Amino acid sequence: MAAKASLLLLLLCAAAALLPVPASAADDGVIKFKVYFHDVLAGKSPTAIRIAEAAATKGSSTFFGAMVAIDDPLTTTPAATGSAKSKDEVGRAQGTYTFADQATFGLLMNMNFVFTAGDYKGSSLTIYGRNEVLSAVREMSIVGGTGKFRMARGYVQASTVDNGAGETVVEYTVYVNPAATA
Amino acid sequence: MAAKASLLLLLLCAAAALLPVPASAADDGVIKFKVYFHDVLAGKSPTAIRIAEAAATKGSSTFFGAMVAIDDPLTTTPAATGSAKSKDEVGRAQGTYTFADQATFGLLMNMNFVFTAGDYKGSSLTIYGRNEVLSAVREMSIVGGTGKFRMARGYVQASTVDNGAGETVVEYTVYVNPAATA
Amino acid sequence: MAAKASLLLLLLCAAAALLPVPASAADDGVIKFKVYFHDVLAGKSPTAIRIAEAAATKGSSTFFGAMVAIDDPLTTTPAATGSAKSKDEVGRAQGTYTFADQATFGLLMNMNFVFTAGDYKGSSLTIYGRNEVLSAVREMSIVGGTGKFRMARGYVQASTVDNGAGETVVEYTVYVNPAATA
Repeated sequence: MAAKASLLLLLLCAAAALLPVPASAADDGVIKFKVYFHDVLAGKSPTAIRIAEAAATKGSSTFFGAMVAIDDPLTTTPAATGSAKSKDEVGRAQGTYTFADQATFGLLMNMNFVFTAGDYKGSSLTIYGRNEVLSAVREMSIVGGTGKFRMARGYVQASTVDNGAGETVVEYTVYVNPAATA
Repeated sequence: MAAKASLLLLLLCAAAALLPVPASAADDGVIKFKVYFHDVLAGKSPTAIRIAEAAATKGSSTFFGAMVAIDDPLTTTPAATGSAKSKDEVGRAQGTYTFADQATFGLLMNMNFVFTAGDYKGSSLTIYGRNEVLSAVREMSIVGGTGKFRMARGYVQASTVDNGAGETVVEYTVYVNPAATA
Repeated sequence: MAAKASLLLLLLCAAAALLPVPASAADDGVIKFKVYFHDVLAGKSPTAIRIAEAAATKGSSTFFGAMVAIDDPLTTTPAATGSAKSKDEVGRAQGTYTFADQATFGLLMNMNFVFTAGDYKGSSLTIYGRNEVLSAVREMSIVGGTGKFRMARGYVQASTVDNGAGETVVEYTVYVNPAATA
């Protein structure tokens, strides 16, 4: 009887020891999905507009000092939008990017992904980091969010899929841990 | 005797299983308080001044592309300040907001709440997120802080309480977990 | 026998209770190191250039509203660089700072430390917070990172070591927890 009880306790203790490991919880809770970011720089309705620069920016081959405000469509496919509202739009990327590198196109990204349709409608992700746009894969941090993503952490990986006339399309793969509430 | 010891162990094991769950620790440690944010846009001493915009901003009904620097009073009551230092000032909101939405007044907020009086004197909170100013309640993320709030996480909820001539008063309810050091 | 088994269980339970405390894990994992930040404001090749300001900025003794883009060298020693690439350069600080205080030199810092040499080559840290430049020690938050610092958290402490003609050298002590993946 005592031995049986002890075995039960051993199992309970083992369970107690295994349950609350934060790292595995984090690994398990990560959600992964893709969105396509459309930076429309030209045409009738650009979604990315330059708002500031230094006097020296005009002489910089990397646009050092230029700051751009964006309200860029996020869609589920890479098809160019021409800034028109597409049927596969799931949100907008809103914020700024600043050319902050004298040697290459290295941007400081400050933006929210604001979801208006799909699984994450009504939620947002807050993104911050460096975007070296000529690299194949760039990573930025997810530092917060709202709705389903309140107190989320994670990262995004960006790859340019099309750099056409006036519209740059970038695939963003999102890795987000909405359970990271600690 | 063995049965009694086993009961004790069962209780200990149960305690061990319950104690270290990060989520409950996070829930327990959250501090909640309110401050009133005063965005003084007009008058002799505005605390919010426009520092950048695109050529296209003047034609935008949502001020798309305008960026504003702020050093806005934070007080314990919603009474208008007229930008004078009020006796209930507990700090300042310092940073920038950028109009980053072509369809509504959707701001990218980048600011620190810098506390100079009261319970959190000498501490600061770092806030980042989207503020859709016509919504009843807007949520932004707390992504860091100093002093009592070093490595804090949490969020703020903002509601406009007065949108008077030249001064917008916004109630910020702060939910902050200063124990989020992991 | 039952007593022996119970003693073993007691030890196991105690271990279960002690093991997964996140705070001690965080304390143990913190990496500390120093870099020197060179803000070159004058000369042939400034690394910090003003990109925006309000009309009122010119009348402000604290430059309220001025925004500066930076691509500042980070080195392992405090020797002035004159903006030339020094042999002890380990990276760059890229981003913006904004004068956001009407009473003192209080900056909103938004920058990435991008490491290009040394132990953290290929990694980056994302930094956000307030920098009151006349204070002896200023603290800002680490809110993210890439490479070895993916999902890192932590803080930096900044102290000006030289404020010479055209180049300000600031010692940054970095406290970063790369294991903060929860």
